[in-house]
Amino acid sequence: MGLHDECGVVGIYGALSAAQLAYYALTSLQHRGQESAGIAVSDGGVDGKIKLHKGMGLVGDVFKNGDLDKLEGSIAVGHVRYATAGGRTIENAQPFLNTYKFGSIALAHNGQLVNHTELRSLLEDSGSTFSSSSDSEVILKLIVRKYIEKGGKPGHASHDMNLFIEAVVEAVKAIKGSFALCIMTQDILIAVRDPNGIRPLCIGNLNGGVTGAESPFEGVAEKGEALCSEGETSPSYIITSESCAIDSVNGKFIRDVLPGEVVIIDKNGIRSILTNDSSSNCEAASKRTCIFEYVYFARPDSVIDGIPVQEARYKMGAILARESKVDADVVIGVPDSGIGAAIGYAKESGIPYVTGIVKNKYIGRTFIAPTQKERENMVFVKLNAIGCDLCGKRVVVIDDSIVRGTTSRRLVQILRRAGAKEVHFRVSSPPVKFPCYLGIDTPSKSELISSTHELEEIRKEIGADSLAFISLEGMLKALGSNSFCRGCFNGEYPV
Amino acid sequence: MGLHDECGVVGIYGALSAAQLAYYALTSLQHRGQESAGIAVSDGGVDGKIKLHKGMGLVGDVFKNGDLDKLEGSIAVGHVRYATAGGRTIENAQPFLNTYKFGSIALAHNGQLVNHTELRSLLEDSGSTFSSSSDSEVILKLIVRKYIEKGGKPGHASHDMNLFIEAVVEAVKAIKGSFALCIMTQDILIAVRDPNGIRPLCIGNLNGGVTGAESPFEGVAEKGEALCSEGETSPSYIITSESCAIDSVNGKFIRDVLPGEVVIIDKNGIRSILTNDSSSNCEAASKRTCIFEYVYFARPDSVIDGIPVQEARYKMGAILARESKVDADVVIGVPDSGIGAAIGYAKESGIPYVTGIVKNKYIGRTFIAPTQKERENMVFVKLNAIGCDLCGKRVVVIDDSIVRGTTSRRLVQILRRAGAKEVHFRVSSPPVKFPCYLGIDTPSKSELISSTHELEEIRKEIGADSLAFISLEGMLKALGSNSFCRGCFNGEYPV
Amino acid sequence: MGLHDECGVVGIYGALSAAQLAYYALTSLQHRGQESAGIAVSDGGVDGKIKLHKGMGLVGDVFKNGDLDKLEGSIAVGHVRYATAGGRTIENAQPFLNTYKFGSIALAHNGQLVNHTELRSLLEDSGSTFSSSSDSEVILKLIVRKYIEKGGKPGHASHDMNLFIEAVVEAVKAIKGSFALCIMTQDILIAVRDPNGIRPLCIGNLNGGVTGAESPFEGVAEKGEALCSEGETSPSYIITSESCAIDSVNGKFIRDVLPGEVVIIDKNGIRSILTNDSSSNCEAASKRTCIFEYVYFARPDSVIDGIPVQEARYKMGAILARESKVDADVVIGVPDSGIGAAIGYAKESGIPYVTGIVKNKYIGRTFIAPTQKERENMVFVKLNAIGCDLCGKRVVVIDDSIVRGTTSRRLVQILRRAGAKEVHFRVSSPPVKFPCYLGIDTPSKSELISSTHELEEIRKEIGADSLAFISLEGMLKALGSNSFCRGCFNGEYPV
Amino acid sequence: MGLHDECGVVGIYGALSAAQLAYYALTSLQHRGQESAGIAVSDGGVDGKIKLHKGMGLVGDVFKNGDLDKLEGSIAVGHVRYATAGGRTIENAQPFLNTYKFGSIALAHNGQLVNHTELRSLLEDSGSTFSSSSDSEVILKLIVRKYIEKGGKPGHASHDMNLFIEAVVEAVKAIKGSFALCIMTQDILIAVRDPNGIRPLCIGNLNGGVTGAESPFEGVAEKGEALCSEGETSPSYIITSESCAIDSVNGKFIRDVLPGEVVIIDKNGIRSILTNDSSSNCEAASKRTCIFEYVYFARPDSVIDGIPVQEARYKMGAILARESKVDADVVIGVPDSGIGAAIGYAKESGIPYVTGIVKNKYIGRTFIAPTQKERENMVFVKLNAIGCDLCGKRVVVIDDSIVRGTTSRRLVQILRRAGAKEVHFRVSSPPVKFPCYLGIDTPSKSELISSTHELEEIRKEIGADSLAFISLEGMLKALGSNSFCRGCFNGEYPV
Repeated sequence: MGLHDECGVVGIYGALSAAQLAYYALTSLQHRGQESAGIAVSDGGVDGKIKLHKGMGLVGDVFKNGDLDKLEGSIAVGHVRYATAGGRTIENAQPFLNTYKFGSIALAHNGQLVNHTELRSLLEDSGSTFSSSSDSEVILKLIVRKYIEKGGKPGHASHDMNLFIEAVVEAVKAIKGSFALCIMTQDILIAVRDPNGIRPLCIGNLNGGVTGAESPFEGVAEKGEALCSEGETSPSYIITSESCAIDSVNGKFIRDVLPGEVVIIDKNGIRSILTNDSSSNCEAASKRTCIFEYVYFARPDSVIDGIPVQEARYKMGAILARESKVDADVVIGVPDSGIGAAIGYAKESGIPYVTGIVKNKYIGRTFIAPTQKERENMVFVKLNAIGCDLCGKRVVVIDDSIVRGTTSRRLVQILRRAGAKEVHFRVSSPPVKFPCYLGIDTPSKSELISSTHELEEIRKEIGADSLAFISLEGMLKALGSNSFCRGCFNGEYPV
Repeated sequence: MGLHDECGVVGIYGALSAAQLAYYALTSLQHRGQESAGIAVSDGGVDGKIKLHKGMGLVGDVFKNGDLDKLEGSIAVGHVRYATAGGRTIENAQPFLNTYKFGSIALAHNGQLVNHTELRSLLEDSGSTFSSSSDSEVILKLIVRKYIEKGGKPGHASHDMNLFIEAVVEAVKAIKGSFALCIMTQDILIAVRDPNGIRPLCIGNLNGGVTGAESPFEGVAEKGEALCSEGETSPSYIITSESCAIDSVNGKFIRDVLPGEVVIIDKNGIRSILTNDSSSNCEAASKRTCIFEYVYFARPDSVIDGIPVQEARYKMGAILARESKVDADVVIGVPDSGIGAAIGYAKESGIPYVTGIVKNKYIGRTFIAPTQKERENMVFVKLNAIGCDLCGKRVVVIDDSIVRGTTSRRLVQILRRAGAKEVHFRVSSPPVKFPCYLGIDTPSKSELISSTHELEEIRKEIGADSLAFISLEGMLKALGSNSFCRGCFNGEYPV
Repeated sequence: MGLHDECGVVGIYGALSAAQLAYYALTSLQHRGQESAGIAVSDGGVDGKIKLHKGMGLVGDVFKNGDLDKLEGSIAVGHVRYATAGGRTIENAQPFLNTYKFGSIALAHNGQLVNHTELRSLLEDSGSTFSSSSDSEVILKLIVRKYIEKGGKPGHASHDMNLFIEAVVEAVKAIKGSFALCIMTQDILIAVRDPNGIRPLCIGNLNGGVTGAESPFEGVAEKGEALCSEGETSPSYIITSESCAIDSVNGKFIRDVLPGEVVIIDKNGIRSILTNDSSSNCEAASKRTCIFEYVYFARPDSVIDGIPVQEARYKMGAILARESKVDADVVIGVPDSGIGAAIGYAKESGIPYVTGIVKNKYIGRTFIAPTQKERENMVFVKLNAIGCDLCGKRVVVIDDSIVRGTTSRRLVQILRRAGAKEVHFRVSSPPVKFPCYLGIDTPSKSELISSTHELEEIRKEIGADSLAFISLEGMLKALGSNSFCRGCFNGEYPV
Repeated sequence: MGLHDECGVVGIYGALSAAQLAYYALTSLQHRGQESAGIAVSDGGVDGKIKLHKGMGLVGDVFKNGDLDKLEGSIAVGHVRYATAGGRTIENAQPFLNTYKFGSIALAHNGQLVNHTELRSLLEDSGSTFSSSSDSEVILKLIVRKYIEKGGKPGHASHDMNLFIEAVVEAVKAIKGSFALCIMTQDILIAVRDPNGIRPLCIGNLNGGVTGAESPFEGVAEKGEALCSEGETSPSYIITSESCAIDSVNGKFIRDVLPGEVVIIDKNGIRSILTNDSSSNCEAASKRTCIFEYVYFARPDSVIDGIPVQEARYKMGAILARESKVDADVVIGVPDSGIGAAIGYAKESGIPYVTGIVKNKYIGRTFIAPTQKERENMVFVKLNAIGCDLCGKRVVVIDDSIVRGTTSRRLVQILRRAGAKEVHFRVSSPPVKFPCYLGIDTPSKSELISSTHELEEIRKEIGADSLAFISLEGMLKALGSNSFCRGCFNGEYPV
């Protein structure tokens, strides 16, 4: 509670009504961003035009009756965006759509570049101009630049498909940071995941959902080698940030995009290029997925890099129970993302799980809280305790994180107001001590309570009877892997 | 899933910014109705005017910046409305505000009258006209009619407060059906609950929240006798459909309004008139609260008539577990209202509780589903299974009810698609065989699957491996009382 | 400039798509009110329901795509409203729609009652309640009351048509003030004009527009006698505030509704009841049409009571030229309503007419003028001088009226800024010294500059080189009649 | 009637609240485009950021309360856009804002390039990408490209002001077609008019309005030489498409921007570069202003290139009267742009001028006309005849042009329906036989009735008793100059 992800992406290839599917998928990714939404679509013709509709607000507000009908076509990319206050303008809404020498290109990006200032300068040196402050626009223009430099022949991208793919690969190698990209030209869809796989991205089969047929594309190609195409008639795919979006369109999960992988989908099927260094076993060596996807951002029904999110949360809760036992009457989780860990904690500890807290799901961007006092009262509108679960009880409450500590303090107040005799605060992630530079909207170091306070000070500050965080080791054990970015815990970033 | 309540109400007395509190409270009652919202407010002066703002949509959409500022005053009533397709017009939005001979009156109503046609005719016979098709407008006009007939003196209502109260009492005795009312004149707030207490209504103290002082008003007066006023300086109260709304404004729950009780709040404090027959022990004899408030409508953090909603759900689940045992690996609940029963079932049966299903909370009224096929696909966008919870497992799934059966069938499909080996469907309410005439939007008898199909037929229809409903006895046992309307189960209605 | 009318009304009977025609007609009456718009419609069946759609804003904003489609039916009444700041709420938007004992009734009203407080009290005494502060709602409820009192039999109004008409006639006799009404039940349309004919109202034939056939209904019935019905198959009529609205639907003007006349249109055709005293020649004796309809409110393409509006303006200008000669180079008119008089003045005086001033037609309700200074600057955005018409010239400028004098002063500044050597201000109406109580939004007496200042003082105040108003006699001569309300000039009101 | 201009532009320098002034000015230019509106603003600091707000709709709809407050700054460019159906998207709304190597640049463009495809290709060859289909974006990127190529030093544009100006001048020389541009960086405002001066552009002094001081800047510099700066403290200027916008902000007209002139405004004042060939007398030789600005587009209160628009219309009417005499009773003009010519015709011919036709000013983009039949009826809602002006009369009606002929035919019908005995149609521009490639939205040649029909055929088609167009010679005589583009009359375009 207090961290925010930046965006969800989707790409659709080969569907009858790609925009409609993108609309469903984006609705399933809405938890990743509520500030703007957009879909670009092409009818797949080499000479076609890419149409774009985007706007501020929820997917359901941006796309009104008739808007989807105007977006006919079989290839689409879509985007939902989380935005900090400064960037809440239509100019920064995605996907970005640009036309250039050989065609059109639309791009949707989840993540954050660390070298976008340098890249922007390089592009500017040779004359590029930008219509937004977004690093995503930098990626789009870099791809085009690379393609032009390679001598891409006039005509559409697909006319010199190989050169275009080369350009994408070179651009991918040039950008540093976190990025899950869905890119489309008039006739191809490309998905890219950064070399560390910091942001999630996965592939689904839109045919498989119906037939249940096994997809032949579950292995991993050698670096640089194209995987065999499926060879099916009219292959139809979805690329998306989370697997829950594949489910939403009744698709079939195939696999995650690999760190550093470029996936190309066109009328010949699907193929892949691995851009990471060949000497390494790319998955083991370089994967540094953002650990907070499991803790907080992802929907519990998603599976990321083979790890089911909800299972990870159960396990974190279980390990937390082992690491910081407490004698109590009930275990509760802070909705929505603390619930999984609470169930796991309860099972492991034997202390009964109860609901304990209700979150009002109707509080959106338009909620009015005019004065400071009323803003503070808002927490009572947003969260409420279930008295019968808490009154006279010793309560273990599990939250996914403590960032500034303010929400935690109010939460403890709410529990005590409801009659909790003791409040034992447990956190299913280690103390967040460093800001994120890779796509998460964190406050500055000085505002991170774990960066400035000792454990006991924090406990006092939030008013709990006891406080414990899961250990980093415990968390990694829960996830069954070491391949995560842990920059916010120890300041060591993969890039 | 499939039933819909009609409305939530709130009344505020004595607050500095009554509209602001009503706004928070209505946001907490939003689950009871999303079609329209409105707040009427008075500054409490006898000669004052009641101002009204209402509109179509969510509370947060109807009240934009500045709207609340225009609603200055210390007394307010508010309303959120669930509407069937036919009545989705601004004319039926509440509160209703009318001026009449002696002042102004605003009214917010949750419930449904069974004799409104007769009453409307009677009023029409003496010349009343109506600006809506709502039975709530009938109540408002009936009160005024009664007051006029009693010879209320010119000037404002409060000038002849006793007569006005008499008029309200007479009107209350004349109307039949379900009603929880918040009524205001320029200077008083009145709350009324129907003689059977079918719809919930409760009282909170807005001072108590701060001082923590015990309220002296927890007993129940003898019929017709006014309870002593609190005698505090500037008493401040909230009346509302559910106690969760009291929590949202940091108020202190005092007690439920009694069946047949009329509660009057003015500058002298709070007093009460019991309109039910004196010979009966009113609570035991007449109380017929809608049982679905516990099963489905109410928020789990509310307490209705002394029964905590979530605790009731836990117990229903526990009894269901005892009544219809099954050998299984996991128990899951259909969100949001099936979760409580699932937790209870799990605890009682010893089968582990897991989340299992995720509900997309961003699907609102504006969601587009153009074609029939796409409408069917919507269920995949709305609900999704958590694969790790279900794959290869024997699953007990608890839903709160089966109405038409269509949602249940799709739900079973979703669980099987996620790999569930067996699906055992358990329902925490008895079969719904009769439509409701008291405020719930039910389909006709022929559409109620339990009305037209035997248990085994339903099981086949929905595709489950086994199916069981809780018994009516079991449900009443869970609630610890017999005082409920059970018309939808057995066709016996209290009115 | 500075006066405002309150509303335009329309009634349609017998058209295939009555709402569509009402929409066109209201658009043509939009100059009479821009605050709200609404249309009520019935399919003409005795058992039918009246549907209503109304909202705040221009006709084109209130009715979006699809809204008209939902308003199927052959009978309609519509309304556009001018509103003072205080009453800008949806509650006061018209038409008003009420259901009552015997059916439904919708009413649209242009005008203002002087005895609505008494009538409201009388209605309230017998129990009526009101949902708005509008005197128009009083009329609606009074009609219903009269009908009920007459013992109207159960069933729809048409079942006892004669009684209903009697009720309307009695209600019309009871209300005092100005009123042009369009009233509909499920199956009849009634139009009423007040006994003095203060507000305009006229009848058009919707069949005649196509066939060009002469309407048999051009005479006037004796008082109380019903005119013969047309006997045509499917007669189709329009009733409206101004004849320009008849033109807008390609209808054929038949005649004005007479002062005190009640016109009834149903499936049997059209008939009429004259409610004014039989001993008088009603037209000559009682007609007191608002003179400002000719000066300012009405569109120049309308004909009211046989007097073409634009012709009246030409004549006022001509008489003004004779009454207050001046040696000048050009004559200009203040748009829009001063232009007619300017053309007339120019022709009579021989001084050339030029355009001189342009009015920005895009300045609507949403125009932002944040600060006072900017508000003053707004006049430069709203009105601008045409330099070539004015520079170095002696200019006669004709405005229709001077109310507060502030606009006139700014206007003179604008002309001088454009180089006018002399500015001779001429006003095509006499000095406005008294507020209007009959439907015009005038400031209080103390704000009327002609009420507090002598002619020479006003001239100085507005900065003109000379100033003259038309004489009342001159104005009446221009109109060729004495039958006008002149309350705002001399304080003598017809009621 | 039937032609449409594409856009109005404004630039503000040195005002306290530049966005507020741009808002007023755009409102005054609203007749030039109603599809989208936008304002970009900078606080004038070299390191500042340019903020942008744009949207679809009228100026008053795009800028709501608070929007202007967020656009603080002293330099602004603004734009209103007319759009053909295909391009009605937010992507094409102006101003365009791009950041690049050395800063930010915003651009607003009225006109149309004929070589934008080639320029776009050239830019694309070196890697440019485009976010819209607009030729205006091409200009913006070309300027940036030129600047980069010239070796502009890092830092903001102003750091190497001279180079930047050189880049603008080179870009201006490279683009062909019609263009009136307002360009801003963080600290300078630049105005450019194409070498033929096809679209109008003029300069106003915002200080002069207050002080009334004479501007020293009324002469014209030698080519390439910078005019002396004003040397005043805080000079404040407005650049805009039409002089009426200068009046709207109470500014003082200085002069028109010359064909091929680049005007630069910064903290040092105002200076100018003439890009046209030095050997020619640039004004006489190259000026080819669009003649339809005088006939139709411009507001009558504007003065373009020294010719007052309304005076030009009077004269066209007068010459038309001389060229095509007719014996008639009244002269009328089709609003709004035909009125000037009608007044001139009347004066010259001695036939009285009357209003004759009223145009409904409330018909905007949202007007609903569902079916084809209703669409045809719309003309009756849009235009109406004034019966008293026409009935039994021989009527001369002046329109500014005949394009397809459909509107003219309906107009004649309207006049005849109102009783006109004879209708003599006169047109204040020569027959339009060729489409425009320079910024006017004309139908294709085959749809231009004068391109496919002889005069007598057209007369029959529109149903007039006689028909005459002004001669091209007559028109030029009226304008007192030969310096106009006459491509639409004779197919000879300046570029």
